Amino acid sequence: MPRYKITIEYDGTPFVGWQMQDNGASVQAAIIQAMTRLTGEETHVFGAGRTDTGVHALGQVAHFDLTKEWRTDKLRDGLNYHLKPDPIAILQVEQVDEEFDARFTAIRRHYLYRIINRRSPLTMDKNYVLLALKPLDVDAMHEAAQLLVGKHDFTTFRSVACQAKSPVKTIDEISVSRYGQEIEVTVSARSFLHHQVRSFVGCLKLVGEGKWRLHDMKQALDAKDRVACGPVVLPDGLYLTRVDYDEK
Amino acid sequence: MPRYKITIEYDGTPFVGWQMQDNGASVQAAIIQAMTRLTGEETHVFGAGRTDTGVHALGQVAHFDLTKEWRTDKLRDGLNYHLKPDPIAILQVEQVDEEFDARFTAIRRHYLYRIINRRSPLTMDKNYVLLALKPLDVDAMHEAAQLLVGKHDFTTFRSVACQAKSPVKTIDEISVSRYGQEIEVTVSARSFLHHQVRSFVGCLKLVGEGKWRLHDMKQALDAKDRVACGPVVLPDGLYLTRVDYDEK
Repeated sequence: MPRYKITIEYDGTPFVGWQMQDNGASVQAAIIQAMTRLTGEETHVFGAGRTDTGVHALGQVAHFDLTKEWRTDKLRDGLNYHLKPDPIAILQVEQVDEEFDARFTAIRRHYLYRIINRRSPLTMDKNYVLLALKPLDVDAMHEAAQLLVGKHDFTTFRSVACQAKSPVKTIDEISVSRYGQEIEVTVSARSFLHHQVRSFVGCLKLVGEGKWRLHDMKQALDAKDRVACGPVVLPDGLYLTRVDYDEK
Repeated sequence: MPRYKITIEYDGTPFVGWQMQDNGASVQAAIIQAMTRLTGEETHVFGAGRTDTGVHALGQVAHFDLTKEWRTDKLRDGLNYHLKPDPIAILQVEQVDEEFDARFTAIRRHYLYRIINRRSPLTMDKNYVLLALKPLDVDAMHEAAQLLVGKHDFTTFRSVACQAKSPVKTIDEISVSRYGQEIEVTVSARSFLHHQVRSFVGCLKLVGEGKWRLHDMKQALDAKDRVACGPVVLPDGLYLTRVDYDEK
């Protein structure tokens, strides 16, 4: 059976998240339904990672199997047609080996968190960025973020609902940069804990506001205790931007 | 009477445009209403330029007079409070000389037109960019755009409803650049005709698709005839980004 890899962009605002759930519309269910309408086949769609309610994707990846061979451009255009009017776009379809698994063969996931740092309210970016009213010190945020790089027990930055077996993860890279009134936090790792990026950004925002110093960030990490975390930020500014796989 | 200059960002989607009209909500009317609620004064708000239905602004400028002196930050925050939930944000308030006139003392206006060039539908950017399905040759578009720079009779690129006395305008600069899947057209001039930027972009899109060559663009300009224009593009991708004034 041919296996296909799809790269997906979506606006997370109207969804309960990537994962199919009983309590509302999910991106995964929308894609499965479009697939059935297009191909007549009932097939499951496996995503690289779950995104929460309101979290967006610029490059989520998923895979599925079909019994019939499809031209990849026909599959892309047909899925996009049947996904209307949901704000989900299939950017790319590739045929892959059956060893490919969107979740288990991913080697790196990349997230972006967007903050608009100004006094005035949001207009076009409402739902797509976090508005931070107080001036943030981006250099201090970037410096504090470097404490999180490497292999650590991230219990402090993990939702109590997190289902991962271990709180130990390895963060490959974090960067905090300013572009005019916009601040972008990018984080890369093989895998993440539940609410990990939003917990990181919540603490980095405290650093940016001057409420936390470098040693407060260090203490929070060392505490290995959820209560040591700053307020978790809204999902609005969070984007799954890319998932990497070994090119063989 | 103190005069104030305001810089405004807005999402044009829900409005009939900048200008007050009988047939729907306008940005101008929303700001006047917020002003009255905040100050108790009835005052008119004069904009630097009219934007059409669906056209956005990142830096529209307007001025108004009040009888009382206000702290500019209080005015900004108060207006923003009373503008809720409209997608209009007052970015900056400055007190200016009474010679300042948002419309008549402006020396340059800058517009941006955003195109997403891909096969897949839009998700988050719906209403905020033009989707162009066919691959566009940005270098050819940029070259053709240079024909429009300078002082010309722009009758071809002017809506039949345009109320300007003369079709002669001077375009200071046009640039067409690609950033990944996004194409940005920027245009600067002291003033513009009605639908001028959207008419330019409509023709440049034909050039990008290979349907028009350089000499077709030249012919369209030389024709001085509205029927020689390509299809005018949607307002969705158009932004008034900045208005310049002489710094004295």
